[in-house]
Amino acid sequence: MKIDGTHYRTIFPAGDGDGVMVIDQTKLPFAFELLRLRDMEEAAQAIITMIVRGAPLIGATAAYGLAMQMRVDASDASLEKAVTRLTATRPTAVNLHWALARMQQHLSALPPSARADAAWAEAAAICDEDVEQCRQIGAHAMTLIAERHRETGRPVNILTHCNAGWLACVDWGTALSPIYQAHDAGIPVHVWVDETRPRNQGAALTAYELGGHGVPHKVIVDNAGGHLMQHGLVDMCITGTDRTTATGDVANKIGTYLKALAAQDNGVPFYVTLPASTIDWAIEDGVREIEIEERAASEVTHLTGRTDDGGIATIQVTAPGSPAGNPAFDVTPARLVTRLITERGICAASREGLLSLYPERRAAAE
Amino acid sequence: MKIDGTHYRTIFPAGDGDGVMVIDQTKLPFAFELLRLRDMEEAAQAIITMIVRGAPLIGATAAYGLAMQMRVDASDASLEKAVTRLTATRPTAVNLHWALARMQQHLSALPPSARADAAWAEAAAICDEDVEQCRQIGAHAMTLIAERHRETGRPVNILTHCNAGWLACVDWGTALSPIYQAHDAGIPVHVWVDETRPRNQGAALTAYELGGHGVPHKVIVDNAGGHLMQHGLVDMCITGTDRTTATGDVANKIGTYLKALAAQDNGVPFYVTLPASTIDWAIEDGVREIEIEERAASEVTHLTGRTDDGGIATIQVTAPGSPAGNPAFDVTPARLVTRLITERGICAASREGLLSLYPERRAAAE
Repeated sequence: MKIDGTHYRTIFPAGDGDGVMVIDQTKLPFAFELLRLRDMEEAAQAIITMIVRGAPLIGATAAYGLAMQMRVDASDASLEKAVTRLTATRPTAVNLHWALARMQQHLSALPPSARADAAWAEAAAICDEDVEQCRQIGAHAMTLIAERHRETGRPVNILTHCNAGWLACVDWGTALSPIYQAHDAGIPVHVWVDETRPRNQGAALTAYELGGHGVPHKVIVDNAGGHLMQHGLVDMCITGTDRTTATGDVANKIGTYLKALAAQDNGVPFYVTLPASTIDWAIEDGVREIEIEERAASEVTHLTGRTDDGGIATIQVTAPGSPAGNPAFDVTPARLVTRLITERGICAASREGLLSLYPERRAAAE
Repeated sequence: MKIDGTHYRTIFPAGDGDGVMVIDQTKLPFAFELLRLRDMEEAAQAIITMIVRGAPLIGATAAYGLAMQMRVDASDASLEKAVTRLTATRPTAVNLHWALARMQQHLSALPPSARADAAWAEAAAICDEDVEQCRQIGAHAMTLIAERHRETGRPVNILTHCNAGWLACVDWGTALSPIYQAHDAGIPVHVWVDETRPRNQGAALTAYELGGHGVPHKVIVDNAGGHLMQHGLVDMCITGTDRTTATGDVANKIGTYLKALAAQDNGVPFYVTLPASTIDWAIEDGVREIEIEERAASEVTHLTGRTDDGGIATIQVTAPGSPAGNPAFDVTPARLVTRLITERGICAASREGLLSLYPERRAAAE
């Protein structure tokens, strides 16, 4: 998508061949800064510190991290060690595992001398495929927005949680892709942007993206969505997911579950968008089986933002001495998800629904 | 309750007779400052700017505001004008109307010359009654905590939203009163404190209160409660309410509804504590009939807190240029409320339940 008229992806090889460039997402929305990652460890740190975040982008960054390590040492031991290191950066998103497994499978079949070039090419392919998949997700999900607009004749009010936009992917995004495509097609949309505490990816990143693209939107606190749904002010919810079980449960940013409950209570459709790489075919019960990352308490107790004089400041907002808990994701059971939308189309949030889109998995599932 | 060993109420007549003293709650948790309100307009402004907040304390402050005006001008016209002015400060909490109606009824029956003294005495009575009612609410609700502890033999995990503690009342609080009483009685409790965006009354005030009293607690973002309930980490929710319908719907701080949905989905009891003054016997359908205050967008876009060097700073956290919406309350339908707990006891959240505690209302309801 475009920043001040220039098209960017969230990650791309540096023009001089020295590492990869990423957008430093910890600086947004107040500064747009590109950052160079020069080796695997810098890629790992970028994932851990959330310079890059979003399930698809984490996968892409890990792939490039592995590619950078292959330039340094392409031995089997190095490959193994790099996969282990990069896997350990974040526990919940499955794309990370998916991307690393894909890279490892591809590279381990090659002689070490061929691995560096192959790794760069494979990482680039992962990125290109992500862009195309996100575009397709958007095209499918946009039909739901268009249909709602035809029904009501008024702007479609869409609530989204966290940031599943192009900043979370390589381009387009998952949940925001249909919104961009609807907006570009002249379908009037208005987006309720959940702030998404504690890291405020909604207020900072989704609002930044939508504002940059000219999509009407309003930031609300995470507490507000249920009230808006009670009063008919939300036509649909669209979110992303960091891991989707074979049965259609979705692990996504903490608080997603609460919005899904409110959507169900008010008859509002709750749509979840995802590329196939976020499906964990090995898992059946999301609440019981998906490991939920517990992040630092400081993310809850402190916030960073811009002061009136343009400086960046960090403030404590909790009572001094009070401890804080910080689970980063929750699981929305499939029963609360109206539809899943993938690059292949729209399906029920169930094993049968997913298998209807991915019939090649049917043999494995039976 | 005590601050650094000294017992305070949230509002009390100044020792020198010049106005009333309140705790400036906009300065908490980083500074404990008493502020003098000298006349009705200062009382009105204190309510509007949330120097004082919490349904019972708003009512008490309005009562003293009226009393201060009676010293200036105790005529019928002045009384009428003062009630109108004070009523207009906040739209959702019904205690405000209740306190002003009680004051007006009492004063209008007296000759103007007797009104000033009578008004001060009546405001003091409202405060004393609030303290006693909050103590009674706590005693009743504490039995539910004690019962849970007997069942499990382990500390009782209680989730609360916003601040319905002694800072929201004159003393004790509503939702926190049973927690203080349980803790003081040696029943082990641990409180999950919802941050409560946008104004962070949980992170700032509830955490401050609980820390001050030595009650174990953890601050969490508003998004986290559902996840905790899914994993058996919440034994019960206890909140306050700003207005309760005759049928048991409760208007409370925005986001309460989402927690009630999660509680229902996970079989966690959801208790709402209230003095009778928050019951609006004239209203049946909370979602449709209760006016929800829309507050300034700046409460969402900006946060104030303490910097590392001890200063107080205000920062913007949203993307520049993005608008924000800020509904301050939502309504939790009675079907999601396990029990109401008032100064008279525990009842079902229904018309019949409330009438069982307030039989004197039965004639009016039929």
